[in-house]
This record gives sequence, structure tokens and C-alpha cells, in this order.
Amino acid sequence: MSIIVAVDIGGTQIRAATYTLGNTKALKVTKIPTKSSDSQPYDRVVRAIASIWPASESVSCITAAIPGPLDPETGIVISAPNIPGWEHFPLAQKLQERFSVPVYLGNDANMAAMGEWRFGAGQGHKHVLYFTISTGIGGGVIADNQLLTGWRGLATELGHVILEPDGPLCGCGKRGHFEALASGTAIARYVNEQLAAGVNSQLKPSPSLGARQVADAAREGDTLAIEAFARAGKYIGLALANYVVTFNPSIVIFGGGVSFSGDLLFAPMRTALKENVMDLAYIDGLEITTAQLGDDAGLLGALALGIYKTKHDN
Amino acid sequence: MSIIVAVDIGGTQIRAATYTLGNTKALKVTKIPTKSSDSQPYDRVVRAIASIWPASESVSCITAAIPGPLDPETGIVISAPNIPGWEHFPLAQKLQERFSVPVYLGNDANMAAMGEWRFGAGQGHKHVLYFTISTGIGGGVIADNQLLTGWRGLATELGHVILEPDGPLCGCGKRGHFEALASGTAIARYVNEQLAAGVNSQLKPSPSLGARQVADAAREGDTLAIEAFARAGKYIGLALANYVVTFNPSIVIFGGGVSFSGDLLFAPMRTALKENVMDLAYIDGLEITTAQLGDDAGLLGALALGIYKTKHDN
Repeated sequence: MSIIVAVDIGGTQIRAATYTLGNTKALKVTKIPTKSSDSQPYDRVVRAIASIWPASESVSCITAAIPGPLDPETGIVISAPNIPGWEHFPLAQKLQERFSVPVYLGNDANMAAMGEWRFGAGQGHKHVLYFTISTGIGGGVIADNQLLTGWRGLATELGHVILEPDGPLCGCGKRGHFEALASGTAIARYVNEQLAAGVNSQLKPSPSLGARQVADAAREGDTLAIEAFARAGKYIGLALANYVVTFNPSIVIFGGGVSFSGDLLFAPMRTALKENVMDLAYIDGLEITTAQLGDDAGLLGALALGIYKTKHDN
Repeated sequence: MSIIVAVDIGGTQIRAATYTLGNTKALKVTKIPTKSSDSQPYDRVVRAIASIWPASESVSCITAAIPGPLDPETGIVISAPNIPGWEHFPLAQKLQERFSVPVYLGNDANMAAMGEWRFGAGQGHKHVLYFTISTGIGGGVIADNQLLTGWRGLATELGHVILEPDGPLCGCGKRGHFEALASGTAIARYVNEQLAAGVNSQLKPSPSLGARQVADAAREGDTLAIEAFARAGKYIGLALANYVVTFNPSIVIFGGGVSFSGDLLFAPMRTALKENVMDLAYIDGLEITTAQLGDDAGLLGALALGIYKTKHDN
């Protein structure tokens, strides 16, 4: 019986699990912090994998979800802003030498898209558009049952398209990006700006203000909080109007913490989508839904990649 | 020897040609006007095909490039603005019944992308982004050697994404689209607007003003004409900054009449691309070039589709 080792590497946690090919229930799972005073993130990844390595069964591959851009061909992590030292880091090669099995990497948003497509909300769909909306905005696209990766694995950075030329500054340094207008960070920043301008609200200005607090205030009827979500929802609808014309998916799946704000976000999003889309044919029958896999999306996406590679490369 | 019958249906002309599988030189070609007082466009397509039908060799399929959206699965033309009566028109089924061979359709921009990828500027590339910039703006994408079509064949309407919310009205009825800002029509409209506002130029306001006249004036040093191309080029660069982040292609190919304006358009485009792209990794090594196939793009794209279908469906 052949085993796939899936790893989900985040800025905070490393999770690793073993799976058999036909089953999404893990045989073994472990979870450890990514950062520690006594060891480097790479060594901690190795430790997590070793701790669940099967005693007797053979391992067909290790697959890992990575929080940053990477080259899927060479397995080099180009950068991972939340993991110190991972700049042009040859992760796949190092793990391959250490464990003597093939290693495949995917970025976290792409892996979550794969996971939702194979095991979550996107099952049965051939054309899936996936967004994760949390502190940032990431994306993944399945087109005709294939993950869209592009020439160097850098495709579908869907949070970094310009929606408002000369709009607010994005974390990446450019202006007016989707992420700078509709992420959790953008929602909190907008509230802080409005508070600084004297707008009345139950919220207090704070650099640590998060989208969750804004959502709580909105549910209690706070006008500014409601408006902050409506503004983000409008930009999500605008981005979606562009992306459905670009990809013509049959389903759009929203993951990430901010996506679970419900109609606060999705009612204005649907209005903006309908107003802005080139032709209603793009949204006629289009399913728009939230992700199903929660914290397991990265691990199950890595499993999906492992299954795909096991079937296609051997 | 098996023959592919390729047809390029435009608003003005119908071209049809026969090819053997391994050759891009047509065996027979014909070209007739699409519209006539004595017969309908569909009957004229049939006549064009019949006139080049091989006497003895078998035909493996008919493939056609269509000037409008269509469903590639059912072969129904959803609309073709320049062909009267082609609204939800079952073209593939009708041709299949008439000629008793399989019929495959693709929209003209997608077919031109296929043609350039297989036989033109995109040869050897697996990830191709193609634009046609003429009176309108169309697009086609090859991702990992596959044409991106989407759920209902409506993907990559790349001219109809919003670049400027509340920007100028597009031919499709929405505002601020790429096509409304950077097509030949948009260039001419901008010049007419500036002339009406009293801007000095050798050009005279006219509803029949075209991008070609503006290009001629620009080459003679007309400031307004130069500025009109620079403005369009800036928007092409902005759109490209979004699209390279979305698709991560290894080559971008520009076809259509306006694309042959050279540095008038491409110098400002490159500047805007570099300024706006999220990360220079997307343009490092990226080839940006013009189409090679000229008027044959539609026919050769239909041939490429025919070859693909012959190999994959039989």
C-alpha cells in the first residue's frame, strides 16, 4: 500500500499527514509551530514529516503547500514572506535528498483550490475559480480539470490585479490591487481611516483592528462597519466580473476567514457582479459558494496534487 | 489521405480552404463576400465549402472561426453581431447534416491564438497570451498547450474587463472596459473628443475617423495623434500587468491592425507594464511580439483546431 505524505506549511504552523490513495481521512497527523528558538523552519518541516513517516509502507511522494511563490518545476521556493530565510530556497531538492522520494510543491492558494476541487465544494466541476480572502487575497484556477500554473508557476496571483488605478497601496508595493481594496487588512484599514476622519462608530482606531472585529460590529448594526464590508464586497464583485469573463468558470469558491462574513460581504458582491459583468450569460447558472474544507484545505490540496502526480508521472 | 476543411467566417468575407494534416499550405482556397442580396450568410458558407470540397479524398472534419461567442460543445453560435440572423444559430449541426462530417467551431480570437501558437509567433511556447487589437479587442490563451475555453466556451473575452471603473462606454454597453480604452475605435473616439474640446491637430473631427489615419498623423508628428496612441498603449500595458499575473505566459502576441503601429503603441505599453506589474519576475524573459500569420490567422487557427480534434477525439 502506497502512502502520500502531505504537508501544509504556514507562517504559524506546520501540519503534516499521511494518506492512502483512496482516502481523505489521514492515517497520522501532526501539527507543530513553524518558528522556534532552537531550530530553523526547514528542520521543523523535516521533524514533522519524520514524526508521521510510515513504519513499513512505502511512500510514493511528499507534497507540500507553501505560503509564497515557487517554481513547481524546480521545487525552489522563490519567497515566503512569513518564513525567515526562505528566499530562493531549494525545498523540494533538500526534502528529496533527505527522504529519498519525489517531492512536489504548490503555493497555498493553488493547493486550497485543488483541495476544494477534488474533495470540497468544487467536486464534479471542471472549471473552478477559487479565492482565499483573509489578511491577503490569493487565488487558484482549475481549467478543464487542470490546475493553471503558467510558465514559471506564477499564474493566478488573483489578488494582485489593479482594480483602481492610483488606488490604495498594496502589501506588494503597487497601488489599487484587489487585495488592497477587499482583503481583511483593507477592510480594517478603511475603518481606521474613516475613524481618523471623524466618522462615528462603536469601533476604536487601532493598528491591531481586524476584519473579525469589524464584522462583529457590523452584526451589531454599526454603520461604518457595515459600509466597510459593503465596500469590500463591491470590489469583490467588480473583480469577479472581470474574472468570470476571463475564465468562464462553473463555480466560484471563496475560502479564507473574511469569506465567512456571509451576506455582509456577499450581498453587495452579487449586486456589483451583476451590474458590472459584460454579459449575464457568464453568471447564468454560475454557482458561488464558500469553501468546505476549512483548515484542512492545504493538506487535502497537497494530497490532491500528490494523487495527480502519482497518476500522471508514473 | 485525410483532408481538413477550414473556414474563416468574418463580417465581410468568408474564406475556406482545404489542408492535409501535415501541411499549412492550402490545397484549395476560396474567398467570397459574407453578405449578398441573393443569398443568406449560411448558404454562402455552404457554397464556399462545397466549392473546395475534395473530389476523391475523405474529409476528417470541418472547422470554422466565428466572429462572436459560441458554445464549442453544442456548436451553437450565440451571437455574431456582424452576421444578420446568427442568434443562437446551430451552425455546427446544420453543416454536419449537410456535409456528413464532424464540425468544430471556435471564436475568431481563440482561433487566431491557436493559429499563432501552432504555426506562427507562438511556436514552441506552452503558455501563450494572444490579443487582437483592431476595432475591438479580443483574446485567446493557451495554458500548458491547451486552449482555455471555460465552462461554456465563453472564456478569455479579454477586451471586456474593467480597467477604469466609470470609464468610457464600451460597445458591449458596460463602462471602462479595456476595449473602450485601447481599441482602434477608442483611439479614434479619443481624438474626436479632444478635437471637439478644441485641441489643436492636423486631424479633423469625423465619425469615420479611424486608427490608421491617427497613426499616419502621429508619424507626421501630430501631438494629439501621438498622445492618443500613448494613452492606448498605457492602457494596454496596464491590462497586460494584470494578465501576466493572471496567466504567467512565456509569450504575448499582438495581432489585429492597431498592433502594427509599432513603437507609437508599444513604447508606452512597455513603460506602463513595467510600472504596474506586481513583480518583475513576470516580465523577466517574457517575449512580447506581433502576430505573424496576418489574414491567414483564422484559417490556420481553424486548421490547428482540426488537427487537435483529429488527434484527440478519434
